[in-house]
Amino acid sequence: MQLLNQTLAMAGNPDAAIACLAQDRVNNLIKPRGSLGALEDYYVRLAAMQGTLTPSLGRRAVVVMCGDHGIVDEGVATGLQSVTLIQAKNFVRGVTGVCTLARQSNTEVIPVDVGIAADFDEPGIRNEKVRYGTANFSRGPAMTRMEAIASIEVGIRVATDLFSQGYTILATGEMGIGNTSASAAMLAVFSGIDVAELTGVGANLPEEKLAHKIAVIRRGLEINHPKQNDPLGVLAAVGGLEIGAMAGVMLAGAACARPVIVDGFISSVSAVLARRLLPGVETWLFASHRSQERGAQLASILAGVEPVLDLGLRLGEGSGAVLLFPLLEAACLMGSGMATFDESGILPV
Amino acid sequence: MQLLNQTLAMAGNPDAAIACLAQDRVNNLIKPRGSLGALEDYYVRLAAMQGTLTPSLGRRAVVVMCGDHGIVDEGVATGLQSVTLIQAKNFVRGVTGVCTLARQSNTEVIPVDVGIAADFDEPGIRNEKVRYGTANFSRGPAMTRMEAIASIEVGIRVATDLFSQGYTILATGEMGIGNTSASAAMLAVFSGIDVAELTGVGANLPEEKLAHKIAVIRRGLEINHPKQNDPLGVLAAVGGLEIGAMAGVMLAGAACARPVIVDGFISSVSAVLARRLLPGVETWLFASHRSQERGAQLASILAGVEPVLDLGLRLGEGSGAVLLFPLLEAACLMGSGMATFDESGILPV
Repeated sequence: MQLLNQTLAMAGNPDAAIACLAQDRVNNLIKPRGSLGALEDYYVRLAAMQGTLTPSLGRRAVVVMCGDHGIVDEGVATGLQSVTLIQAKNFVRGVTGVCTLARQSNTEVIPVDVGIAADFDEPGIRNEKVRYGTANFSRGPAMTRMEAIASIEVGIRVATDLFSQGYTILATGEMGIGNTSASAAMLAVFSGIDVAELTGVGANLPEEKLAHKIAVIRRGLEINHPKQNDPLGVLAAVGGLEIGAMAGVMLAGAACARPVIVDGFISSVSAVLARRLLPGVETWLFASHRSQERGAQLASILAGVEPVLDLGLRLGEGSGAVLLFPLLEAACLMGSGMATFDESGILPV
Repeated sequence: MQLLNQTLAMAGNPDAAIACLAQDRVNNLIKPRGSLGALEDYYVRLAAMQGTLTPSLGRRAVVVMCGDHGIVDEGVATGLQSVTLIQAKNFVRGVTGVCTLARQSNTEVIPVDVGIAADFDEPGIRNEKVRYGTANFSRGPAMTRMEAIASIEVGIRVATDLFSQGYTILATGEMGIGNTSASAAMLAVFSGIDVAELTGVGANLPEEKLAHKIAVIRRGLEINHPKQNDPLGVLAAVGGLEIGAMAGVMLAGAACARPVIVDGFISSVSAVLARRLLPGVETWLFASHRSQERGAQLASILAGVEPVLDLGLRLGEGSGAVLLFPLLEAACLMGSGMATFDESGILPV
């Protein structure tokens, strides 16, 4: 709890004065005002975060938080629980979806075990295990409040380490069979919307099993009755260890003054959690893609972030988050490389 | 006309057999089937275009077609006509929006004068001038039918040259003060929809002048009464030289079996023109971003392409098109780098 509280206390805001100067600069570039849309916004925000009118992306990584979910005992997922560990090892081998996509932007993939339900020996996976998967939340709380805090603190610790090693920006990703159920449950509590409207098929759950998935989540909410205004309680009751850990990465961004990229549905629910713990954390976040998973759009809205990539992705792992790096780089190049109206002899429009 | 006819005759289709094999490969990668959305589609399409299961992007460029528009005499644009030439020179200097964004993906910017209304000496701009800007289409045809054909053939020639020099993929861009008016006029004819529904503010035309812009375009359509089923006639009557030239680049893609990336509103209207001349040309096209310009969405639909980047761009120049390169590269890396279910011991979902 101490690390979490310290982190919340350290959180700052991007530099508003630099943001003004950056906006002035953008308005004076040789293009119709506003015509580069979100790229202009990216440039201004990165300038304010980095405290310079020539922001740039340096060393970057996607942190893939891995954890298991007791709720899979209820038959809510198609994948076997063992897939979480298999994929965690595949991140080290560099052969999963996010690994290949990350290569395009020279992004490192850093898998972290925050709660895989197995012992194993794999030096490439950072061991931060809080417990062996969550408990089945349809029969009781997923974890204790202390474990929920510990999971968030894993994310804080990992991200703070990476920032201190010179990483300038992090993307968030996850691996955890069953985690769309936990995410839908958390989102239902945070939004007050019925879980049936927020529950999707995850990793290709057959449509005919969707009603069962919804019923299981609903039972979990009834048994645990988490309170909307108690974010740590929501995480403990129906959440996931990797969901807490990703929220921790985001909180560390605010505390270390570094940007963090949100991925799809699960990661967006982490962003909602982070924002409930720290209103304003979204000023350090960039959304990436619009996940196909039902509920993703609401999660983005509650997190206060706006995704731009409409690729129909629904894989997780941080696969969509890493695709934002080239766009952020392009925005930096725009801000530093375009001529201004003053230089060009064109009248501003 | 000979070059255009030859090009239409040479047009082929991507390799359907390779597409099947590529789809099989994608379905066997360790991810829920379909979960990488448009990236899966990109991989399959590029494989079929390049005839290999390991497609890759090599040397790439954005061809920026520059031309002027007589319609600016009617006060439909905020920018002065002279800005077209100033910006054409700025493409050579590397200081426009597309130049800076293209740098992110190592994309060359190749400006072409297909109809700038001035003589000038600038070795970096390829001289393919068909005429000194179009005529004011609110008072008569924008150009002759022969000039319309010539403008398309400029695009064919330029793209064919580049493909034969080893460029593997091209993006399309344009610069031409007044060209949203010409594009809206063409789209109104091709779609049968009233031009008032398709006309936007272009480069920040004040909203109060929009009604005037619409009235001018409407007059041009009444005077020239172009026929929907005569695409060359539409281009000649109310089009633009750079609009024809971009269509030519797309047609050359189909004839040379190379992909071409569509940019925003103007470029999408070129794609509609190309498709009316050559149904099926869209199998060689990739859409990029959803332009903010009114009419852009309809243009994409008529062109048969689906943009994925929702960045609120409305600059033109090919600025959105070049942002697709990293996503296409990522798709190629996905197809070649991910493990398969067979290798991994995971059951497919």
